Amino acid sequence: MQTGFIGLGAMGAHMARNLKRAGFLAGVTNRTAQKAQALALEIDTIAYANPAELAAKVDAIILCVSADADVLSVIDAIMPAARPGLLVIDCSTVSADTARRAEAQLRPLGAAFLDCPVSGGVEGARDAALAIMCGGSAEAFARAKPILDAIGRAVTHMGPTGFGQSTKATNQIMCAGIIQAVAEAMAFAQAEQLPLDKVIETLGKGAGSSWYFVNRAPFMAKDHFPAGFRVRLHDKDLKICRQMAARHGVTLSVIETTLAHYAQLIEGGFGDDDISTIFRLKTALFDPKS
Amino acid sequence: MQTGFIGLGAMGAHMARNLKRAGFLAGVTNRTAQKAQALALEIDTIAYANPAELAAKVDAIILCVSADADVLSVIDAIMPAARPGLLVIDCSTVSADTARRAEAQLRPLGAAFLDCPVSGGVEGARDAALAIMCGGSAEAFARAKPILDAIGRAVTHMGPTGFGQSTKATNQIMCAGIIQAVAEAMAFAQAEQLPLDKVIETLGKGAGSSWYFVNRAPFMAKDHFPAGFRVRLHDKDLKICRQMAARHGVTLSVIETTLAHYAQLIEGGFGDDDISTIFRLKTALFDPKS
Repeated sequence: MQTGFIGLGAMGAHMARNLKRAGFLAGVTNRTAQKAQALALEIDTIAYANPAELAAKVDAIILCVSADADVLSVIDAIMPAARPGLLVIDCSTVSADTARRAEAQLRPLGAAFLDCPVSGGVEGARDAALAIMCGGSAEAFARAKPILDAIGRAVTHMGPTGFGQSTKATNQIMCAGIIQAVAEAMAFAQAEQLPLDKVIETLGKGAGSSWYFVNRAPFMAKDHFPAGFRVRLHDKDLKICRQMAARHGVTLSVIETTLAHYAQLIEGGFGDDDISTIFRLKTALFDPKS
Repeated sequence: MQTGFIGLGAMGAHMARNLKRAGFLAGVTNRTAQKAQALALEIDTIAYANPAELAAKVDAIILCVSADADVLSVIDAIMPAARPGLLVIDCSTVSADTARRAEAQLRPLGAAFLDCPVSGGVEGARDAALAIMCGGSAEAFARAKPILDAIGRAVTHMGPTGFGQSTKATNQIMCAGIIQAVAEAMAFAQAEQLPLDKVIETLGKGAGSSWYFVNRAPFMAKDHFPAGFRVRLHDKDLKICRQMAARHGVTLSVIETTLAHYAQLIEGGFGDDDISTIFRLKTALFDPKS
């Protein structure tokens, strides 16, 4: 299946490279045209001037952009080439509502849409090891599966349109709560003067353990927070989660507490640290002079 | 080493049985004397009338009781038999301060004290599979190690007196934050009508995962919360954590949020549910009529 790629950021460029390797990539385009031209040169593909020109030449489009408005503007730009058989796969992390709007916009023209947010970060994108959570029709999912397998390792159909984004949002809420748990516990452990390496080793085997504790508490023990999962990006994702919860009339405490911490961290210049940098705020509680 | 056991509750009775099996147990005693007599009959050991009589006959005492005041009153009761060479091992979960008070009370008489809180629950106690976090001198720890190996699987010396309790408190804070994370994320997923089994399977392999998510989110998906780790017990432990944080002049948000939830749950008659029952409160947010 001939596939075009739109959105060649840190994640997208790697995903496009993996599609090329697997023999699916027919061309790319990007808001900043130079990025598309540079990648086209690097991996020997075609840089198209805009989404419609690219979409006219391919069976499937994958897009990976930043925000809800970006997704909707790419969909608008694709519309002139929307037609029966065209499959549009959005790997951006946005709200489930945006996915439903995009799907509803393409459907009358016979084009299919899948929301397929990913997790696994830049490393996962580079290594074609992303987890991909998909929402849309079973038929569209079946068509997309071989392409998604070329960029990911665990590709799951979660249900109808929007269910990919809802699953990703669930994950981001969970990460927010866990980083609170790990940072607060580690700050307490440090204040109690415990040997942190031994704490990580001992508690890492128990019922209180988590991926974040095992993999990120060691950063806290060294007060060094290389990204990882940047505060700025999780902040963006949690604002989507907040908005999705608000549609149910609900405010969730894990989201709100973490967003308040992130506002402080971004203000303090730590927006590009890994989210484990939240440890700074928890230790500051114990040492108000610092 | 001849060992006596004090405190034959749900955990203690199993621990005493395992000590007997390993050939260490010389006798037991308990605040409710009938419990001691029944266990003595069951496992063929001696039930002593009080802690001092038992302590006079053994090289080591293990105690496993409920609260800080209980530990201190057992230490008071042992005092008449405190002497050089006596080793007192406290497996209760109490504050690090209580450990330091107990150690300071025994030291002038030449008796050694170790704080050795455990984790792994009733199943861990039954299967001699507890994780045991120890505080006290290296010499006392070395003497205690063979006895502790008979009741636990991972026995770690964390540092001086109190460090066992500080490590346990760190774990309890982490569990509080994680159960918040998992319950809130799962309630959101349910409100979004996601297939919860697929969510658990998919996100359980990712960076948002934790022991609690993999092992307890399935309870949430079934709205059924068999203990497990009872709300009432974690509530007790978190109040110890709150008090330990307060000694640093600090209020920790994970502790406070979770204690507020637990107060509601205990009030509602769910104090003997597993802590994953917190899911009830999070789903109620999404469905205020229920």
